[in-house]
Amino acid sequence: MIAMIAGLGLIGGSFALALRDRALAEEILGVEKSPEIAEEAMRLGLADRIVEFEEGIAEADLVVLATPVDTIPIMAVKALNRATDRQVVMDMGSIKGELCEVVSMHARRGRFVAAHPMWGTEYSGPKAAQRGAFSGRITVLCDTERSDADAVALVERIFRTLECPLVYMDPEEHDLHAAYVSHISHVTSFALALTVLEKEREERHIFDLAGGGFESTVRLAKSAAGTWVPILLRNKYNVLDVLREHIHQLQIMRRMIERDDAEGLTEAMQRANSIQRILR
Amino acid sequence: MIAMIAGLGLIGGSFALALRDRALAEEILGVEKSPEIAEEAMRLGLADRIVEFEEGIAEADLVVLATPVDTIPIMAVKALNRATDRQVVMDMGSIKGELCEVVSMHARRGRFVAAHPMWGTEYSGPKAAQRGAFSGRITVLCDTERSDADAVALVERIFRTLECPLVYMDPEEHDLHAAYVSHISHVTSFALALTVLEKEREERHIFDLAGGGFESTVRLAKSAAGTWVPILLRNKYNVLDVLREHIHQLQIMRRMIERDDAEGLTEAMQRANSIQRILR
Repeated sequence: MIAMIAGLGLIGGSFALALRDRALAEEILGVEKSPEIAEEAMRLGLADRIVEFEEGIAEADLVVLATPVDTIPIMAVKALNRATDRQVVMDMGSIKGELCEVVSMHARRGRFVAAHPMWGTEYSGPKAAQRGAFSGRITVLCDTERSDADAVALVERIFRTLECPLVYMDPEEHDLHAAYVSHISHVTSFALALTVLEKEREERHIFDLAGGGFESTVRLAKSAAGTWVPILLRNKYNVLDVLREHIHQLQIMRRMIERDDAEGLTEAMQRANSIQRILR
Repeated sequence: MIAMIAGLGLIGGSFALALRDRALAEEILGVEKSPEIAEEAMRLGLADRIVEFEEGIAEADLVVLATPVDTIPIMAVKALNRATDRQVVMDMGSIKGELCEVVSMHARRGRFVAAHPMWGTEYSGPKAAQRGAFSGRITVLCDTERSDADAVALVERIFRTLECPLVYMDPEEHDLHAAYVSHISHVTSFALALTVLEKEREERHIFDLAGGGFESTVRLAKSAAGTWVPILLRNKYNVLDVLREHIHQLQIMRRMIERDDAEGLTEAMQRANSIQRILR
């Protein structure tokens, strides 16, 4: 199989490594606008050749879209415009609602498969790509009933080979769940980093003490704006919903602290402890 | 040296292991009110004997207080009431203001050293104790000018042997910094867990997708209420201050998302990215 991957950063680059390591692709064509990033990706062995997006499609059995989510819908349409009945177009983005709507009436909708492997780190660019990145992580496939059976089968085979358990959802359900288990964590981390950085202007040594707890809560604040601004804005209503609830929960805790309500805080924390059952 | 450790949970238990592994103590006496916890601590080798707090003091060269922070000030006074000029009393708590005030006028204030090694995990109890726990972590000593030189020297020697860089602060400064780099992370994790658990009541499968980002942000929500309620209430004004700023930052991000303000979000995230320079 020849795979063409558009976007050779954290996700696309890791996928390139996975396809190669598992002998799923004989050749990987990479699409990268920036010459510096393209060069870095080539140096790291993430692609065999750099090609132009429109031209590369003809050569590829599988077209993979791993660019920021605001660019994916148009690229999906352009790829489908050029795809034959033997080619498959898939994406790896964190937002599915708008994308699935945009391609829904395309004459070649069947060749498209919407996929989201639930993996990422706070790093970005080709050097953030990791071997074995997706292994063991759930991958969500959306609207598979609108994709051709052979296209779904190819994508399923790839993710099964990568040891990703598959979950099937409609795009709206995916975006709602992603807001809760991924997008909100990023918003709180960014806000927490800003909170502490704000204070640091007055108190210069505040970070001397930064320990493990702080580090894990604020880790995601290192994430790239180029990735996360489009995600938050494309999943706006879900993110605003979760954010409203999260601020509400913080305000409840603030009032309990104000009132020295040890009993209320204990009850809230014990309720929060049950998060344990869903984390390993 | 004979060390008596009151509280054989995460912190006290890990300290017991460290004293033993580094050959800093020949004998460790443990104080634990709960018979079950005492038995578990003995089984895990965290103490050689379980003793009563008041009786054990006479035998110990070093008395270590590693119980929840609301119990430490009274225990420190009781220990100092019984201590001779050759014994040292130290604590390991996350709050220093009230404690240092309570012991400030004690006739044997010189025998007390206030210490806070900046290490912890979300687990609690004897089985949460870890070997090598404090290694490389900063330890804050407060008000050392009020402690006798030999008492400070002993505590410094212990933490240097454990490879903890030492930082000296007054108690108010410590509590302010701890609110920013530790206490607020716990509040946000608890609130985030509650946010998601609240939603789970309607959407049962929300956690199928919980990936690495979510896990790290919400990890601290597994922490014990018995530890954290006293910390938040004893550091009330600092915690409320940080919490107000954090909620403010979340509201700013919420408004930018509402208004599709990609430029503002990008600027905020890039500012947050600078947290990178203080995380390893």
